[in-house]
Amino acid sequence: MLLTDLETPALVLDRPRLVRNVERMRGRLSALGVPLRPHVKTAKSAEAVRLAVAGQPGGITVSTLKEAEYFLEHGFTDILYAVGIVPGKLAHVADLQRRGARMIVILDSLDMADAVAERAAALGATFQVLIEVDTDGGRAGVRPDDPRLLEIGRRLHAAPGTMLRGVMTHAGLSYNGDSAEAIQAVAEQERAGAVAAAEALRAASLPAPVVSVGSTPTAMFAERLDGVTEVRAGVYMFMDLVMTRLGVCGEEAIALSVLATVIGHRRDLGTILLDAGGLALSKDAGQSGGYGRLIDVATGAALGLVVASVNQEHGLVPAAEQDFARLPIGTQVRILSNHACMTAAAHERYHVVDGGADVADTWERCNFW
Amino acid sequence: MLLTDLETPALVLDRPRLVRNVERMRGRLSALGVPLRPHVKTAKSAEAVRLAVAGQPGGITVSTLKEAEYFLEHGFTDILYAVGIVPGKLAHVADLQRRGARMIVILDSLDMADAVAERAAALGATFQVLIEVDTDGGRAGVRPDDPRLLEIGRRLHAAPGTMLRGVMTHAGLSYNGDSAEAIQAVAEQERAGAVAAAEALRAASLPAPVVSVGSTPTAMFAERLDGVTEVRAGVYMFMDLVMTRLGVCGEEAIALSVLATVIGHRRDLGTILLDAGGLALSKDAGQSGGYGRLIDVATGAALGLVVASVNQEHGLVPAAEQDFARLPIGTQVRILSNHACMTAAAHERYHVVDGGADVADTWERCNFW
Repeated sequence: MLLTDLETPALVLDRPRLVRNVERMRGRLSALGVPLRPHVKTAKSAEAVRLAVAGQPGGITVSTLKEAEYFLEHGFTDILYAVGIVPGKLAHVADLQRRGARMIVILDSLDMADAVAERAAALGATFQVLIEVDTDGGRAGVRPDDPRLLEIGRRLHAAPGTMLRGVMTHAGLSYNGDSAEAIQAVAEQERAGAVAAAEALRAASLPAPVVSVGSTPTAMFAERLDGVTEVRAGVYMFMDLVMTRLGVCGEEAIALSVLATVIGHRRDLGTILLDAGGLALSKDAGQSGGYGRLIDVATGAALGLVVASVNQEHGLVPAAEQDFARLPIGTQVRILSNHACMTAAAHERYHVVDGGADVADTWERCNFW
Repeated sequence: MLLTDLETPALVLDRPRLVRNVERMRGRLSALGVPLRPHVKTAKSAEAVRLAVAGQPGGITVSTLKEAEYFLEHGFTDILYAVGIVPGKLAHVADLQRRGARMIVILDSLDMADAVAERAAALGATFQVLIEVDTDGGRAGVRPDDPRLLEIGRRLHAAPGTMLRGVMTHAGLSYNGDSAEAIQAVAEQERAGAVAAAEALRAASLPAPVVSVGSTPTAMFAERLDGVTEVRAGVYMFMDLVMTRLGVCGEEAIALSVLATVIGHRRDLGTILLDAGGLALSKDAGQSGGYGRLIDVATGAALGLVVASVNQEHGLVPAAEQDFARLPIGTQVRILSNHACMTAAAHERYHVVDGGADVADTWERCNFW
C-alpha cells in the first residue's frame, strides 16, 4: 500500500528518522553515562518504544494509567507514572502491580505522602514513591531547599506501605530556551536541583537511590549529568517544529507528519484548503507560527508553505499562483507539526514508512485515559 | 456509579442541559419554519444525535467519513458530508451508498465537478452534490455571483453520474461576531447569499431544491430564513465558553465538562495543579482566556477559577489562599471548555449525568478518521 492509497487525514511515521532520533539520544546519554527511561506520552506505541528502550534498562515513563495498562500488556513492567498521584488512582496502581508491573508514583506534598501511606495499608499494597522536585518554578514539585522535602521523605520512609526511592524533576522551562546556552543553563539547574534534593534526603539518612530528570531539550543540551541516575524524554523520538525552533534538531529529523489532501483552491483569497484542520494537527500553535509546515509526500522536501489557520476539519494555507499550479485539488501533502505529542494524540494509528511513500507497517496508539 | 468513582480526566455530559439545548434549537428553527440537519461533528455520538433529530426529517451532517460509517451503523441514512470532496474518497462514499446511505457530497470547483463525474462513471455510482457557496470570504466555496457557479452546476447536471441537488454554505465568520446585531447581519448574509446562488442556478434551468445553511450562532440569531430548506448546526447541543462569549447562551447551558482532580498545591506560586491538561481540554484557547473554567462537581456552581495554562497532562489554575483550603489535593472539579468540539474529541466516551453526580449512562464517541 502507498500513502496515496490512504484516506486523509492520516498520521505518517518515518521509521528511519525515528531510528536515527533514538540512536542520537542513546549516543548522547551514553556519552554522559546515564541510562534512559523513555517517556512514552508522545509515541504511545509499543513498537516505537521498543526501539527507544533497546540497549537501556527497559524502564519507561508514562503520563496516564492507560499507558501503563497498554505497555504492561506489551511486556513493559518497570513503569514510572510521572503525574502527581492522588488517592483515587491508587487502587488502579495496586491492580497494575498485582498484574506484574513495578510501578513508581510521584508526589510533592505531606498530604499525599500520608494519603498514599493510608491507601497502601487499606489496599494491602506497597507503593514505590519518588518525591517530585521543582527546579525551575514552572509546575509541580517541592523546592530542593524546602524543609518539607525532608518531612515528606521521613513520612514515606516511616510508613510501612510506602518505599521512598528518591527524587524526580522535569525542567519544563527548557521549552522556553532561546539559545543552546540558555537550555544548557536550565539543564544544569535541573541536574543540580535534583541532585541537591537527593543529597539532602541522604544527609538525613533517608534512601534516595533514584535521581530522575528530563526533558528532550535538557537531555540534548546537558553538558554533564553527574549524580543523575536516569533521564526521561519522549518527544525526541519524533521531534517537531518546537524542537527545531529550540535548536534541538533540524526539520530533516522530524519523523512525524500528517498526510492531507488539497480539497480546495481559493485563488481569489490566495488560499489552498486542506482536509487536515485543528483536529488532525491539534490547535497547538507552538510558538512556531501557524499549525504546521507542508512537505512533499514522497520526497519529504519542504514546500515553503504553512498551515496558517485551522477549523475542525479544514486547514488554510496561504498560497501564490505557482502553488495552485503545483498542488491541484486532490493532491496529497504531508504536514510537519508544531507539537508531536498533541498531533499524534488526535490519531488512532501510525502509517509507518521507510523513507518513501510505501506504507510498510501500521502501529496502533493507546489514546485516552 | 458516582462521578467521584471515575478516574480522571473524564468527559461528563449533562443530559438535561443537552435536552434543553436541543429543544431550544428545535423551537427556534420551528418558529423560522426550517428543519434541522444536525451537524454531528461535536457530539459524534448516536445517543446524543438521536435527541437532536427528534421531530426533524432525520438527516445529519458529518465532518468525516468515519462519522458517516458510524452513524450509518446506528441507523442514520441521510448523510451530508460537509467537507469538500476529493476523488480519493469517492470509492468510500460509493461503498456507504451501497450499504444504504443516501450520501450528499459538496464541491466548489470545475475540476472537482469533472472529477466526481469521472469517478461516478468508473465506480458505477451516482453522487448527489451540493455546490459549496462562500458568503463571507472565510473559507471554501464559490461566490454566489461568480460565473463559475453556473458552469459547475451545468457540468454536474449534464453528467450522468452526478445529481445537482442545490447549494450549501457555512457562515464561519459568525464566530467572530461581537454583538447580536453583528451575528444577525452575518446570518442574513449567509441566508441571502445561499438563496441567491440557488436562484441563479434555477434561473439557468438547473435544479436547486436544497438550500442548506448553518452555524450555531447564525441559527440562533437569524431573524428570517426565507428560501432556506435546512439548517446545519452542531455545537449548540453541548455549548461552550466560545458560545457564551458570543451571547448564544449562558454558562448554565453548557452541557459538556471535563472531570479533573486536584493533584497539587503550589501556595508559593499561587497555583493549583489539575490532572487535566492540553490533551484533556484541548489547546484551543478560544478567545475566552485560558483553557476552561472550573465548576463544582456536584452542583455545577462556578468556582471563579480558570485553567490559565496547560501541559500535556497538567492544568495550572491561579489560586488564592481560600482556594487551596476549599480544594484540597484529591478533590475533583469539573471544567467548562472553550471549544466543545475540540475538547470532546480528546475523549473516548461521555459519562452522562442527569444534573447531579450520578453516572446514569456511558455513551461512546466515533473519533478519528
